[in-house]
Amino acid sequence: MTGKPDHIQKNAGRIVISVDAMGGDAGPAVVVAGIAMSADKNPDLGFILHGPEDQLKPLVAKKRILNGRVEFRDARDVVTMEDKPSQVMRNGKGTSMWSALDSVKQGEAAGAVSCGNTGALMALSMLRLRKLPGVNRPAIAILWPSRNPQGFNVMLDVGADVRADAQDLLQYALMGTSYVRNSMDIPRPRVGLLNVGTEEHKGHADLKEAYGLISDHSETGGFDFVGFVEGSDIPGDTADVIVTDGFTGNVAIKTGEGTASLMRITLREAFEYSFLSKIAALLAMTSLKRLSKRLDPRRVNGGVFLGLNGTVVKSHGGADATGVSAAVKLAFRLAQQGFAEKLAARVASSVALTQDKPAQMDETSPDQAPTKKD
Amino acid sequence: MTGKPDHIQKNAGRIVISVDAMGGDAGPAVVVAGIAMSADKNPDLGFILHGPEDQLKPLVAKKRILNGRVEFRDARDVVTMEDKPSQVMRNGKGTSMWSALDSVKQGEAAGAVSCGNTGALMALSMLRLRKLPGVNRPAIAILWPSRNPQGFNVMLDVGADVRADAQDLLQYALMGTSYVRNSMDIPRPRVGLLNVGTEEHKGHADLKEAYGLISDHSETGGFDFVGFVEGSDIPGDTADVIVTDGFTGNVAIKTGEGTASLMRITLREAFEYSFLSKIAALLAMTSLKRLSKRLDPRRVNGGVFLGLNGTVVKSHGGADATGVSAAVKLAFRLAQQGFAEKLAARVASSVALTQDKPAQMDETSPDQAPTKKD
Repeated sequence: MTGKPDHIQKNAGRIVISVDAMGGDAGPAVVVAGIAMSADKNPDLGFILHGPEDQLKPLVAKKRILNGRVEFRDARDVVTMEDKPSQVMRNGKGTSMWSALDSVKQGEAAGAVSCGNTGALMALSMLRLRKLPGVNRPAIAILWPSRNPQGFNVMLDVGADVRADAQDLLQYALMGTSYVRNSMDIPRPRVGLLNVGTEEHKGHADLKEAYGLISDHSETGGFDFVGFVEGSDIPGDTADVIVTDGFTGNVAIKTGEGTASLMRITLREAFEYSFLSKIAALLAMTSLKRLSKRLDPRRVNGGVFLGLNGTVVKSHGGADATGVSAAVKLAFRLAQQGFAEKLAARVASSVALTQDKPAQMDETSPDQAPTKKD
Repeated sequence: MTGKPDHIQKNAGRIVISVDAMGGDAGPAVVVAGIAMSADKNPDLGFILHGPEDQLKPLVAKKRILNGRVEFRDARDVVTMEDKPSQVMRNGKGTSMWSALDSVKQGEAAGAVSCGNTGALMALSMLRLRKLPGVNRPAIAILWPSRNPQGFNVMLDVGADVRADAQDLLQYALMGTSYVRNSMDIPRPRVGLLNVGTEEHKGHADLKEAYGLISDHSETGGFDFVGFVEGSDIPGDTADVIVTDGFTGNVAIKTGEGTASLMRITLREAFEYSFLSKIAALLAMTSLKRLSKRLDPRRVNGGVFLGLNGTVVKSHGGADATGVSAAVKLAFRLAQQGFAEKLAARVASSVALTQDKPAQMDETSPDQAPTKKD
């Protein structure tokens, strides 16, 4: 489906990830440190690194673990956080971001990772990799710390597009399900549709329509539909996949992050307040580290773009080496599972299922068997 | 404007709050315990209590502090959490919620407090108290723990209506400003409009229109418009008033609450993990109590309905006595400030300002001087 079956064979049998070295807040040194951490943990990883070669080569040379595992693609321009997606689509050809996506398009890499401007990365990804047949709006999916046994939920869309109609929300349910199946060991994920209440009569007309559509497709899609869920269920345990439009999803994750950050600051202040509380903090160090590891946003760093011909992972702009390494690990894992191909098949089969006219089915998905797994 | 100038003089010079004793998760005993806490702290408070008199009288009799400060209104029916707002509007006449609002309508009380079903309470409030002239959609405003010096931000709408157009968002900005001025000591509040990014080109068309409208009215409205803000600014320090539609606002607060609750659970688990961490928890007790007081949702319990002829405070359905007492305190404070009257004047003057045809101004606000303060 994606037309690059042989990318996994390059770089001496390693899975190759294409990495945009530029555009993150902390500069290319942190990105190189991140891929070095990944390379150290995983001998099956190789990299193509995009950016100004004269800057990147010395940074890579300092990390012995990267020896022989990094190819360079010289790209002089950088997409900044201030650049508008429309400008980047017109003038972005010389940028490291463009180049990183091109390696996926050409089949040289199994996935791309970038810390750059999210809007520009999504716009360029759609331009270079194109949407999967049958997908109207691609989505960004993230992992969110939750009370579920797996420790995380998947939420999408968190900002690819501010709008989503009922059909889009159904696609998100199918793509999110596929993502959970390929990144966690959950054969039959539970899907919830985000609303202001769990009663069926609540919310917008689009949501009520999506409720019906998602419910109708749960059997063929291989998921359990738990119906409407609320904001409190995002970190909760009632669903594994939370489906929403990109506006609501984006506000929700940023509110959650902001709340967590306020609590961390307040906790630190509380422990620095008195002599006794400072001693308590010392004694509680291990416990606090466990807490902070559990809820560390760096461990779940990486929004995955779903609905494209190829895997793109957006790392947080402010990611440190640990964060970059987590994003690389995610891209690697999805490549290893053949996720892009499975998702394409899943979406194609759903297109077949939701099309009224059988003639259209052949048009959009000529070679997909609707029964194909995932 | 609200037609009840004399309500503050009843109950032996006390400010009287009308309290719906029923509909909360924990039953009337907790509501009575809550008003007793308030009565103990504040000698200027009197109550009208609504519900089955035979149940309420023995509960009140047990609290000596309430002696002579509570009038009863017998109401046999209760609005449950499952009742649909439309049903309650048709058949709710015998309920304690209806009765509690009626005391405000009749001018017997300066404000109403209920722990009941939010949708039903808003529907009944609109039916019984009616919207202020010039307000299309009333809003629910809540306080949210933040990094601001005052410790809180105001956010609205958090669920009165899932929709809001640009005019509604302007009204929310004006009502939120007025609320902040009357509940905190901030003469010139900063208003932010919630979006998925701070750049002017982001978001829905309605939001861009609202941006222009709110910006145009900042001078006459007496607030600073800080432009678009993100979810992370809700617990942040860039704005005092966060304006959004009821769908987004509702999802945001529930996500924030859920995240805070997950962190509390994880923190507790961390401290119970080992012998050493249990000792640490003992030593850190004071610090942790300080943290939990700072972020205690009960302290900020009380969503205020803005845009009605009268003050209605919605307490959390699961509120304990402390929570009920906080909601009563809020209703008292707003009554003391003459908030309902000030808000009516503020909205009327903004209607005058946003009307194109001067003739309409006299129609909707016959007796308001546009220069009137607040």
